Amino acid sequence: MSGEDAPAQQQNAEEQKPQQQQQDGESKSESPKTENKPEATPDEPAAAATAAAASGEAAEAAPAEKPAEEDTFSYRALVLTGYGGYDKVKLQVKKGKPALKSGEVMVRVKACGLNFADLMARQGLYDRLPSPPVSPGMECSGIIEAIGEDVTDRKVGDKVLVLNRCGLWQEVAVVPSSHTFPMPEAMSFEEAAALPVNYITAYMMLFDFGHLRPNQSVLVHMAAGGVGIAATQLCKTVKDVTIFGTASASKHEVISEGGVTHPIDYRTRDYVEEVRKINPKGVDIVLDPLGGSDTHKGYNLLKPMGKLISYGAANMLAGQKKNLFAVAKTWYQQFSVHTLSLCQNNRAVCGFHLGYLESELVTDVMNDLLGLYLQGKIKPRIDSTYHLEQVGDAMRRMQERGNIGKIILTTEPMKEEPKKEESKKDEKEDKKKEDKKKEDKKKEDKKKDEAKKEEKKKEETKKDEKKADEKKADKADEKKADEKKADKADEKKADEKKAEEKNEEAKKEEN
Amino acid sequence: MSGEDAPAQQQNAEEQKPQQQQQDGESKSESPKTENKPEATPDEPAAAATAAAASGEAAEAAPAEKPAEEDTFSYRALVLTGYGGYDKVKLQVKKGKPALKSGEVMVRVKACGLNFADLMARQGLYDRLPSPPVSPGMECSGIIEAIGEDVTDRKVGDKVLVLNRCGLWQEVAVVPSSHTFPMPEAMSFEEAAALPVNYITAYMMLFDFGHLRPNQSVLVHMAAGGVGIAATQLCKTVKDVTIFGTASASKHEVISEGGVTHPIDYRTRDYVEEVRKINPKGVDIVLDPLGGSDTHKGYNLLKPMGKLISYGAANMLAGQKKNLFAVAKTWYQQFSVHTLSLCQNNRAVCGFHLGYLESELVTDVMNDLLGLYLQGKIKPRIDSTYHLEQVGDAMRRMQERGNIGKIILTTEPMKEEPKKEESKKDEKEDKKKEDKKKEDKKKEDKKKDEAKKEEKKKEETKKDEKKADEKKADKADEKKADEKKADKADEKKADEKKAEEKNEEAKKEEN
Repeated sequence: MSGEDAPAQQQNAEEQKPQQQQQDGESKSESPKTENKPEATPDEPAAAATAAAASGEAAEAAPAEKPAEEDTFSYRALVLTGYGGYDKVKLQVKKGKPALKSGEVMVRVKACGLNFADLMARQGLYDRLPSPPVSPGMECSGIIEAIGEDVTDRKVGDKVLVLNRCGLWQEVAVVPSSHTFPMPEAMSFEEAAALPVNYITAYMMLFDFGHLRPNQSVLVHMAAGGVGIAATQLCKTVKDVTIFGTASASKHEVISEGGVTHPIDYRTRDYVEEVRKINPKGVDIVLDPLGGSDTHKGYNLLKPMGKLISYGAANMLAGQKKNLFAVAKTWYQQFSVHTLSLCQNNRAVCGFHLGYLESELVTDVMNDLLGLYLQGKIKPRIDSTYHLEQVGDAMRRMQERGNIGKIILTTEPMKEEPKKEESKKDEKEDKKKEDKKKEDKKKEDKKKDEAKKEEKKKEETKKDEKKADEKKADKADEKKADEKKADKADEKKADEKKAEEKNEEAKKEEN
Repeated sequence: MSGEDAPAQQQNAEEQKPQQQQQDGESKSESPKTENKPEATPDEPAAAATAAAASGEAAEAAPAEKPAEEDTFSYRALVLTGYGGYDKVKLQVKKGKPALKSGEVMVRVKACGLNFADLMARQGLYDRLPSPPVSPGMECSGIIEAIGEDVTDRKVGDKVLVLNRCGLWQEVAVVPSSHTFPMPEAMSFEEAAALPVNYITAYMMLFDFGHLRPNQSVLVHMAAGGVGIAATQLCKTVKDVTIFGTASASKHEVISEGGVTHPIDYRTRDYVEEVRKINPKGVDIVLDPLGGSDTHKGYNLLKPMGKLISYGAANMLAGQKKNLFAVAKTWYQQFSVHTLSLCQNNRAVCGFHLGYLESELVTDVMNDLLGLYLQGKIKPRIDSTYHLEQVGDAMRRMQERGNIGKIILTTEPMKEEPKKEESKKDEKEDKKKEDKKKEDKKKEDKKKDEAKKEEKKKEETKKDEKKADEKKADKADEKKADEKKADKADEKKADEKKAEEKNEEAKKEEN
């Protein structure tokens, strides 16, 4: 997967911009300017969507004809509107059929996977996600709806798993064909959306960095999480591997059934002591998604020739908004190691993050994983499935470590009426309403900001030679604007679109 | 190999000490109290050596009868007498047949391997070697001459390779049976002495930490050195591996023939640039024996999922004595890495040092290596063979990077008369004589120190309960004494044994 291709979709879905902007992968992150409709009719069909594939060339050649098509093609998308709490990810409607460049495919998304990186991204702690507004989502499953020029390995109608830098939490996603993988017949869309990130991560950590072999031992933190369950299943493909898995006591039964040899309740026990009781010499591999002081503990638990594999800093997440204390503490305690210590202990420290990995290795791994799936050796465990509208609840469940297995977002429209749904959650309702009002205000602000930016950009296109520098400045402005918004914009800015927005809100609540 | 067992030989070769001292692996390093004879007749046969194996129990039970046997059994040994230049490693004669404990074997050593760790040790930069006086040497080959109780897998007459923490640069070595490996029929003693350290190191780095696979690329520093040549041969056992090897230009022909794909003259070229010219994305594995700034360069040369494997700090060695500037610089520049950098780059940093590795893994690796030898896939390249008397020259050749392949010490007596040998080295002669005089004085001082220590220890045995603490203090005293000796003892201490020593020196020069 190549990061440069990833944000292309936002761009295509909106207005066509001058071609020279599309050359610069970095600059794309500024571009999303979605037409936001606060609430779409959930079952609104994208009738024109199944039409023949638009070749990339045709789309690029005909920007002037776009407006006509925009009215007929629209799709719902989750958009991160700024860094902060759960409410920063909003369901919006994008209009306009995305144009396909050579080698790209358009996927009608069925299910999306939720990952820790998405939570980090929402708090502004993941620099691989372009600046908001942007659609998050690193993995999904769906059906190919159109193919671009030079795509020979996929055809319309193919069911695929998709892995991308971002932009997959929406009903329609455009990605390079090489980021899609054919789904096995027996696989459900939920399973397909649950597989890529967690299983590739677990596989590359255990089998490439870890070089796991028979009779070895592995400490798996968050063993009931998506990567934890994937790692457990993959460990089981190697003979006589001992798995120590940390999870709260209520999840022990499930993870034991899944293959964890020694479940450890990290909330009531010192996991280092528990491991030492059973393996006095320590373990061969530690998979560490936590960071901070836990990385030090993991390092000290390694046997000779042991490998510590860090793949995140979940300890930074303490609350729905960025917790500066947790971030600073995790950062301060973050593990740093000197080669002399590594030599004297014969140890390895590895870092893995799929989001930063641009390598053809991923394709081979995915093919291996699909083989293991077909052999029945791995099978994603779905914890729960949420509708796009419920993304906040989904994120909360993950952040509060409520899940056992993968949390999935489905693009299927919600069956219940929103009111019913809301009545089930009385305790959250008042806050939600307030949040919505704030959100709406923010949306208005954003629209105004975007209008201003659009003007700016039009001017910019006349000054091609200065573009690169200006873009950077522009990006900085955007970030500052977002920060200001979060701090104080809500109360200060009242504007002429207020009445219109309130009407829409009223409609929404009636639904 | 277990570090605790290793220094046992020095102990056995001398006087029998109270059993409770032998329980403490740390304390053993204090014990060597050899009977030094400045120059032995090189061809003096150790007649009694081939006698039946002394069982550990018998030896332990009969300390009082020792003196009689000491007269008949003696062997030459290289002894590190203090930290410093090449002259600190002296050829001495040890008397007394070493006692064997259960599980130990006595080996008549034929050839020994020279390693970088030995050079570091001589300068006081390798903490796995017990304090001087001590016999260095981590690997050798030879013939089993006696076996201790409970040894069932070796018998008298077996030809073996030996790997030990230290103590193998002598004609007779006592090691745990598990530290010996049967030599294949076709293997010479030189090859057998050249194999263990270099090939185990290269193997574990490439195949355990590195997880080397077909089509990958490896940067091998010091590609003409012992580990470099071993690594090249082992890389060649994997399909289509690209090997970048640094060495001075004069060695390129040999290393190319050995399998290095792209030899790089690090003295005239920037190896980073040279690698990038051929592999713009970098390499999958860097084997780094250098440390300091080269580790940073190696890290930055890694592809995604790449592994940097540090296995030494040869950059610390700049001159025959400890070069504080080089040590400080290498230390200051020593590589330290944060897990965040590892994650964002998907990289691993590993440290390997066989001297610190106490793991049963070594046995499996050695068996694999002997298999590869039998298949003709690996074959140690012997650069040169030196007699024990020439250990200084051997170390100089290694330090000055003169070698292509392994430098071997043979226990075979020198054919030339010492005088001839000396006349070849007129330029060094004057200094040598002065050194010898100083050495002799130091030896006398040491004997006195040891006599004092012995008295101390006898007192100590009466105070068992305070032993552990006293041992530590004792060790510190020993170090201090060594330091003082090096600084000023030579001129200040004249003593009653002087005449006797001078006589011996005269005899030596006549030889």
